[in-house]
Amino acid sequence: MREGSGTTSDSPLVLLSGGGGGARLAAGLSQSSAERPLLVVTNTGDDFEHCGLTICPDTDSVLYAVSKTIDRQRGWGRGEESWAVFGELKNLGGPDWFQLGDKDLALHLARAAMLSAGQGLASVTQALGYRLDVPSSVSVLPATESPVRTHVVTEQETMAFQEYFVAHRCAPVLHDVVYEGIDSASPAEQLRDALGHVGAAGTDIVLGPSNPFLSLAPILAIPGMQELLRHAARRVVAVSPIIGGQALKGPAGKIMSELGLDVSAEGWTRFMSEQYPGLVDVWVWDETDQALAGDLRSEGMDIRTTQTVMSDPSRARAFGDWLLGVCDSGH
Amino acid sequence: MREGSGTTSDSPLVLLSGGGGGARLAAGLSQSSAERPLLVVTNTGDDFEHCGLTICPDTDSVLYAVSKTIDRQRGWGRGEESWAVFGELKNLGGPDWFQLGDKDLALHLARAAMLSAGQGLASVTQALGYRLDVPSSVSVLPATESPVRTHVVTEQETMAFQEYFVAHRCAPVLHDVVYEGIDSASPAEQLRDALGHVGAAGTDIVLGPSNPFLSLAPILAIPGMQELLRHAARRVVAVSPIIGGQALKGPAGKIMSELGLDVSAEGWTRFMSEQYPGLVDVWVWDETDQALAGDLRSEGMDIRTTQTVMSDPSRARAFGDWLLGVCDSGH
Repeated sequence: MREGSGTTSDSPLVLLSGGGGGARLAAGLSQSSAERPLLVVTNTGDDFEHCGLTICPDTDSVLYAVSKTIDRQRGWGRGEESWAVFGELKNLGGPDWFQLGDKDLALHLARAAMLSAGQGLASVTQALGYRLDVPSSVSVLPATESPVRTHVVTEQETMAFQEYFVAHRCAPVLHDVVYEGIDSASPAEQLRDALGHVGAAGTDIVLGPSNPFLSLAPILAIPGMQELLRHAARRVVAVSPIIGGQALKGPAGKIMSELGLDVSAEGWTRFMSEQYPGLVDVWVWDETDQALAGDLRSEGMDIRTTQTVMSDPSRARAFGDWLLGVCDSGH
Repeated sequence: MREGSGTTSDSPLVLLSGGGGGARLAAGLSQSSAERPLLVVTNTGDDFEHCGLTICPDTDSVLYAVSKTIDRQRGWGRGEESWAVFGELKNLGGPDWFQLGDKDLALHLARAAMLSAGQGLASVTQALGYRLDVPSSVSVLPATESPVRTHVVTEQETMAFQEYFVAHRCAPVLHDVVYEGIDSASPAEQLRDALGHVGAAGTDIVLGPSNPFLSLAPILAIPGMQELLRHAARRVVAVSPIIGGQALKGPAGKIMSELGLDVSAEGWTRFMSEQYPGLVDVWVWDETDQALAGDLRSEGMDIRTTQTVMSDPSRARAFGDWLLGVCDSGH
């Protein structure tokens, strides 16, 4: 964290996002921060190749969330979706483990056309955001343009994360997670540009309430990424994905536990501060976990609590407002 | 042509097909030849990469025609088609020059999944045919598994055939046609197998009423293809794509004329017999052109005439019956 109180209102608030929680927070902040640009850096580790197409689940969730085209019930994919192609794909014996809605598929095809024509993933994502009417104050940017693919190592085999997550419904016990390609990856040039122009005062960086192994690590382990973020940061705020001893949604708690995380807000905080020493300035927990904060606070950690559950857009916006307040308040 | 009168009823009738006329004839023959297996060898020169997918227009037209899932009004694509993805693709600024129906797209995705998994194009096509309920007596087989891509050379530029055909509606003047990749292509192994087992009596081979430059040449110019066909042929029957001095449909007449063909049944016959000396035994013209046959007949060419316009399935079947009669009658 930098000293000084220069205004950062022109600098984009940066959100690192993966999965549903990150997308909901992106939508909340895009409402709250109308006065301040928002740069959402998305996890590319979940990207995978399917039926000839490059599918970017985390990036797409953010695009759909901030353009208000997401299906709010499901929490992924497009609202008012139809399934004509997917129905016929099943008739034809095609793979049916990954659901492809018609509108969603159109985005994958548009992306494929641009990628085939030689456009980079960042510029493709920007073009898609423009077409989806993402607010002009919001940029959605894949963390890297180099292919990074999260593979999970289970007792039986190693497989692509989406296959584990969707086809196997996270049933196999996880032994390890590997990020294929990450050693030769680098932060997207547009991200380096954006963070290179935040000025001396730095800007605020939020780590969304996302799985540390599956959503944040494939961003933060990109060589040069942590240095880039530290250099640009006025303040780094991390939001706990664990509430009341479990992940809010789905099997994330199981995954974190199998990978050795003590599944509690305290366990998550200790894990993150050991994994990324000195990176995070402010730890945000749900108010449910308030009673657990004593030990860490006595060790000097800045833990704040509030309602972090973003069960609808107004709660997401309220949480976004609160987070912006934390960013602007300093100590 | 082989001498001898051994039965060929177990040997597949082989049809070389490209485009709409070939597909209609395939459907007609598949009805007529219920007693005799039909092997439809499809042109792969029109195949192209679009939105990350390998699209095989001529192969798909045959698959749809023989499975009776083709849209008969349009003559291409699936019947009872919907356009949900294509509508959204246009909203998203994706390429809109090639129409992608939802059911059609499902086939492209299923194909892409199998190709990505390492299956060859012939086996993929067989699997798709099975799923589409193509009659078990009919095999649809791309002429080659090696990528052959027909590019057209116009006054302005060289472009993929589908781009010229669909996006530019054949407006530019054609100077030349090139078949990229054909020099290193070879006939599909399944085709070599099938033709290697026709027995001493040989089998009958029909060249569909297809554009000689754009549909037949990308098959017949595959190294080894003509030898393979000659070796297996009891009789080769070629159907004229030109009726009354023009191609039956669309700009094929313009294309043939620009490429130096005298657009008449006679011109087509002379071109084909010069291009492929000794390959064709029987020339089939529409009865409209009966009066033109005198010169060529006096030169010893076997020209037969009948109603060749396949304006509906019953006419296609009648023409198929007639063709089978020609094959079985010998001289």
